[in-house]
Amino acid sequence: MLKLKRVAIDTQGENVAFMARNCAVYRPEEFQALKKIEVQHAGHTLLASLMIVDDDSIIAVDQLGLSEQAFARLGGKAGDAVCIAPAEPPKSLDYVRLKIHGSTLEAHQLEEIISDIAAHRYSEMEIAAFLVSSAGFMTTGEMLALTRAMSQVGNRLTWKAPCVVDKHCIGGIPGNRTSMIVVPIVAAHGLPIPKSSSRAITSPAGTADTMEVLARVDLSMQAMRTVVEDCGGCLVWGGHVNLSPADDVLISVERPLGIDTREQMVASIMSKKMSAGSTHLLIDIPVGATAKVHNNGDAMRLRKLFEYVGREVGLHVDVVTTDGSQPIGRGIGPVLEARDVMAVLSNQPDAPADLREKSLQLAGALIENDPALVGGSGYARARQLLENGEALKTMNRIIDAQGRQTATIAPGGLTKDILAHRSGVVTAIDCFRMNRLARLAGAPLDKGAGIDLFHKVGDRVSAGEPLYRIHACFESDFGFAAAYADENTGYCLGDER
Amino acid sequence: MLKLKRVAIDTQGENVAFMARNCAVYRPEEFQALKKIEVQHAGHTLLASLMIVDDDSIIAVDQLGLSEQAFARLGGKAGDAVCIAPAEPPKSLDYVRLKIHGSTLEAHQLEEIISDIAAHRYSEMEIAAFLVSSAGFMTTGEMLALTRAMSQVGNRLTWKAPCVVDKHCIGGIPGNRTSMIVVPIVAAHGLPIPKSSSRAITSPAGTADTMEVLARVDLSMQAMRTVVEDCGGCLVWGGHVNLSPADDVLISVERPLGIDTREQMVASIMSKKMSAGSTHLLIDIPVGATAKVHNNGDAMRLRKLFEYVGREVGLHVDVVTTDGSQPIGRGIGPVLEARDVMAVLSNQPDAPADLREKSLQLAGALIENDPALVGGSGYARARQLLENGEALKTMNRIIDAQGRQTATIAPGGLTKDILAHRSGVVTAIDCFRMNRLARLAGAPLDKGAGIDLFHKVGDRVSAGEPLYRIHACFESDFGFAAAYADENTGYCLGDER
Repeated sequence: MLKLKRVAIDTQGENVAFMARNCAVYRPEEFQALKKIEVQHAGHTLLASLMIVDDDSIIAVDQLGLSEQAFARLGGKAGDAVCIAPAEPPKSLDYVRLKIHGSTLEAHQLEEIISDIAAHRYSEMEIAAFLVSSAGFMTTGEMLALTRAMSQVGNRLTWKAPCVVDKHCIGGIPGNRTSMIVVPIVAAHGLPIPKSSSRAITSPAGTADTMEVLARVDLSMQAMRTVVEDCGGCLVWGGHVNLSPADDVLISVERPLGIDTREQMVASIMSKKMSAGSTHLLIDIPVGATAKVHNNGDAMRLRKLFEYVGREVGLHVDVVTTDGSQPIGRGIGPVLEARDVMAVLSNQPDAPADLREKSLQLAGALIENDPALVGGSGYARARQLLENGEALKTMNRIIDAQGRQTATIAPGGLTKDILAHRSGVVTAIDCFRMNRLARLAGAPLDKGAGIDLFHKVGDRVSAGEPLYRIHACFESDFGFAAAYADENTGYCLGDER
Repeated sequence: MLKLKRVAIDTQGENVAFMARNCAVYRPEEFQALKKIEVQHAGHTLLASLMIVDDDSIIAVDQLGLSEQAFARLGGKAGDAVCIAPAEPPKSLDYVRLKIHGSTLEAHQLEEIISDIAAHRYSEMEIAAFLVSSAGFMTTGEMLALTRAMSQVGNRLTWKAPCVVDKHCIGGIPGNRTSMIVVPIVAAHGLPIPKSSSRAITSPAGTADTMEVLARVDLSMQAMRTVVEDCGGCLVWGGHVNLSPADDVLISVERPLGIDTREQMVASIMSKKMSAGSTHLLIDIPVGATAKVHNNGDAMRLRKLFEYVGREVGLHVDVVTTDGSQPIGRGIGPVLEARDVMAVLSNQPDAPADLREKSLQLAGALIENDPALVGGSGYARARQLLENGEALKTMNRIIDAQGRQTATIAPGGLTKDILAHRSGVVTAIDCFRMNRLARLAGAPLDKGAGIDLFHKVGDRVSAGEPLYRIHACFESDFGFAAAYADENTGYCLGDER
């Protein structure tokens, strides 16, 4: 038996075990080729990747170390007696191998895979193998089964109202914080909209990050329910209510690998919405050269996949394609985006018109789901609720109900203006580069970091005029971001037509 | 700038960097989602996966730690100043993504992928993505380009002789140590056979592990050349002469994932043989229910792939299919296998007949490549060289030239006989289970660990009679192996026909 030790190394979710090379009980090198071991403690087992340690201040010969996350998952305490054994790979890996070699998987096989992934029994390379094998080829039947399997693990919300609406954007567009405007409008109208959002994984801000500038977002399921009952809507972080643990694990590998396939995207989004208990869902697909979807043909194929799954699982789905040719609004990064959102909700004259208009379109489409409304009047109703201040009032009630942030966070104090290198017209803004730039500047980790855009597509600029401003809070980030912008501003300037 | 620190953690080849969460210069959490950072030191850069440390005895706020392998690769010393930057993913990952989405890759794209993999610029999950994407579908053209790309990285041997022979078995059969008999026979005949072999990755012994019981195998390229010039052949460890560094990295991920596709196998084997400078290659494909290849149809398809690549790269290839229905010889594990090999070479009457016969067949086929020999007399010549003691004499010269082991290693002292649970005839022995059992017993790490088979297919046994003996050197291994054998002996016993 070895003594359990917590090793204060954060392995980003993967279970990692540490053993001394000269371990008194086992010989870790035997387990090294297969990389995984099974850790046994008080009737619980845990699969972990193995690292061998040659430093007894980290791991002594009579200790078994576990990374922070693995230690928490095993549920033991330091010094507890643990055994190890050669890991039997999860049986569901056989199904992954079938898929690699071209098989179509049955629903129960996908369920086992997803259940093992959610229980952290897959290593990162095994998760990558599953993702890549199904990125190559996946039937609509498999996509549907994957959606159902993912919605079955984790928590599930249920609501009493007959019509519970939700919206979701497939992402990729910087500054696109429409949810924070749509939710208060729709809630003000009276349709329940219990919105749970993600934090940024590789983007500079998720809705949860930006909302957190204004209010707490890490609510329990019960607290979330209370906010929705009181205010008609909420804007909370979905990760905290654990609606889709399998998706959280899959995304942690999918994003660094940079693979983003239609079927996996649909399964990911639809499974979360099933768990959230929505009845009517609006999907926003931005289309543009630097967006996730590049043309209307691809958007159409994606729309049909959403509609197919929606019909099969009994969730009403509307899909809209929107302009994804450039960032929405001006700010990119939590504080700057929150500023834009509040400017729109407060009807400030200089509020970004594109963010306002897109939010009204989406809110209008959601309000159309209200049977009491005359068909076609959703947009006008949304506009009325925005202009008469009801939406702002509802937003403030939601903020207070979730827990208003008392500190006001300013944009990052390290700033650099990126200048036009020539006079002309802005012909394109690269969404991918703007996201990466704001991320390098420190967003979302620093709420105040990001980019403030001074010009959008169609604007005329003079040589030397600032195109946008970088805000950062830390010197190292500021340096990374400035170097990236100097290499390529992300703006295309052309001649006037 | 941070101070470089060697962290004595063995990450099995992957570059891993460690930073304190409260690092004085950078904020590691920013880099966490993309998992990789670039480490810069004295004009060198290194890509590494990032782990965040909350224990300043492991990593202080002004330090950057690197795992043992990464530290060695960067080439700095403890305390050196290092910078980090967000990692730009290797450009070749774009080609992996193309492959994932169904493209056929160009030769130069595969070259870039292989060059980046050999230079340790891919993380394990990225290697898994490449392997799985090409396991799903790979044209023969891609397989050929992959073979060439893999042979281009690493060292390359050249020989003056017009005919340099080599043999290779695709593996999977326990105890199948024919190379150690074939090499001395062929060398005694006078054909140069510079054999480099692998160590076991997930099997209980590679030829290099078993040869190491008798002689040193970690020879430099120059020492290997001298042995071949003096003795006509050698039996060295290929990993030490670095003939195929890309293959070494790929295999380290392929094996734990358990994916083993035809095209990758052919590219792996053929690239190594190209680098080894062979002109005539004999491939052994064992066929059997628990072998890697299950039937003659699959063996035929695999044969054609080997022949195609051989023709294109100018390497003469002969492929033989052999009986892979059960282990070859009696011993499984380095010491027990070396005992069998020496018994055959010494013409001991109780030497395993199947190992002797198979080795003679393979040696005969290789000798047929000698233009001076009358066609069809290779087998007789091989048998003559074995029976007249020339093969044994050559083996002893090779052992002395490589460096004879002075210590004699005994089989592991912890033993357990596994008994027949009924009387009957042995109808099958599971190669997969026998490999795993010998591995659990401690082979190849303990040279003396393994299994000694007392009965083979066709033998009659009585209930309670020992089928085989497990040898182990450590209590923990002995326990794992005994439990595995108790669960299922790996032997099928049936009624006499």
